[in-house]
Amino acid sequence: MNLLLLEDGDFIAADRVRLSGRRLTHLHEVHRAEHGDTLRVGRLGGDMGRGRLLQLDADSAELQVGFDQPPPAKLPVTLLLALPRPKMLRRVLQSVAAMGVPRLILLNSYRVEKSFWQTPFLEPAAIREQLILGLEQARDTRLPEVIIEKRFKPFVEDRLPQLASGSLGLVGHPGDHPACPRAVEQPVTLAIGPEGGWIPYEVDKLAEAGLQPVQLGERILRVETAVTALLARLF
Amino acid sequence: MNLLLLEDGDFIAADRVRLSGRRLTHLHEVHRAEHGDTLRVGRLGGDMGRGRLLQLDADSAELQVGFDQPPPAKLPVTLLLALPRPKMLRRVLQSVAAMGVPRLILLNSYRVEKSFWQTPFLEPAAIREQLILGLEQARDTRLPEVIIEKRFKPFVEDRLPQLASGSLGLVGHPGDHPACPRAVEQPVTLAIGPEGGWIPYEVDKLAEAGLQPVQLGERILRVETAVTALLARLF
Repeated sequence: MNLLLLEDGDFIAADRVRLSGRRLTHLHEVHRAEHGDTLRVGRLGGDMGRGRLLQLDADSAELQVGFDQPPPAKLPVTLLLALPRPKMLRRVLQSVAAMGVPRLILLNSYRVEKSFWQTPFLEPAAIREQLILGLEQARDTRLPEVIIEKRFKPFVEDRLPQLASGSLGLVGHPGDHPACPRAVEQPVTLAIGPEGGWIPYEVDKLAEAGLQPVQLGERILRVETAVTALLARLF
Repeated sequence: MNLLLLEDGDFIAADRVRLSGRRLTHLHEVHRAEHGDTLRVGRLGGDMGRGRLLQLDADSAELQVGFDQPPPAKLPVTLLLALPRPKMLRRVLQSVAAMGVPRLILLNSYRVEKSFWQTPFLEPAAIREQLILGLEQARDTRLPEVIIEKRFKPFVEDRLPQLASGSLGLVGHPGDHPACPRAVEQPVTLAIGPEGGWIPYEVDKLAEAGLQPVQLGERILRVETAVTALLARLF
């Protein structure tokens, strides 16, 4: 937790917050914070600044806070991800938030196991929890938007063309394609497949919607690694 | 497991292997392999090719194998990593092997907790296990070399200058430094700090040894994410 992220409910005055639960535990056990310490704070959806610990005990902490700095810029990208397996999903949500992706679409694909859609990690509160961890890690305050699309064909046919319009549309896909471009200047719509990859039908449908296949080399990367590698190369 | 990685002890003839244990379980449960199936295989340290399942039951599998393809090229990089916490270490070892890093040095740093050096995940067999998982993921056959350096100063003063000689020396470090270069052509020696970063003394010592600080932006990334992002940007 490189940023103490504050929500509206934490405020007991305009410049004062009271914390308990996970963040309090973290202050005690990881930061080993003490009365008078100054910490980096951010207001969820708002600015970042500093907080001074006025009081800290086993039950709660109180900080005086001020905000004077905008959060870091987001990447100009919409990330389309075939739904990863539940354990990977949690880490991917953290990475995506930490890297500064403003919009994530979790999409079905032929190679997404049906059971993955049943995971409790897809509940809005569970998604939010992982995103917050990513924001706290990277020092950002703005939650990415997460959209869930359980049906590949209607989404890719009816919604994706408009969504990708005006952006560079790319599908990360192993094979004999152009290399993923570097340091692009324009907005990007980037699709990354499931373990085992998109099936050819899906690659064709994504191409019809304006997303062209690009590759990162011979190595097959885990989804989480591929997301980070593609974003780091693109921006 | 995108590659079935074979070791000398698996061979019962020049073109035939017998498997049990983890890989057999994986064939049954994940690949749901059957008699006659063809799988991608690789010989540890050697070439890759195809294997045909001659026999498969609960106790063992036998494959007829042939090798006709070299493994993918490694990255021209030596990666110096402050020892991550044990849970992260395992994932980093997998990522490093999957990304094609040929040499990894795990180094002490002021912000590495002493207890991290006690983890059983640093045993040679445990390190090898994670590296193999990374190779199987990425389809590579050559194990990275992993060097453990428990003392920062003697390593950085006495061994690093020679080790980094002739390469582009870089330290990934947040702050007011040049941006990490892209698509470099020469070999690189890249150092990545612990959670919380190198201390200024360490950055100075690394600079004396020929490694200059570079940054990736305002966001603080987890070690595993930073490793992937820096490698993807550099190569």
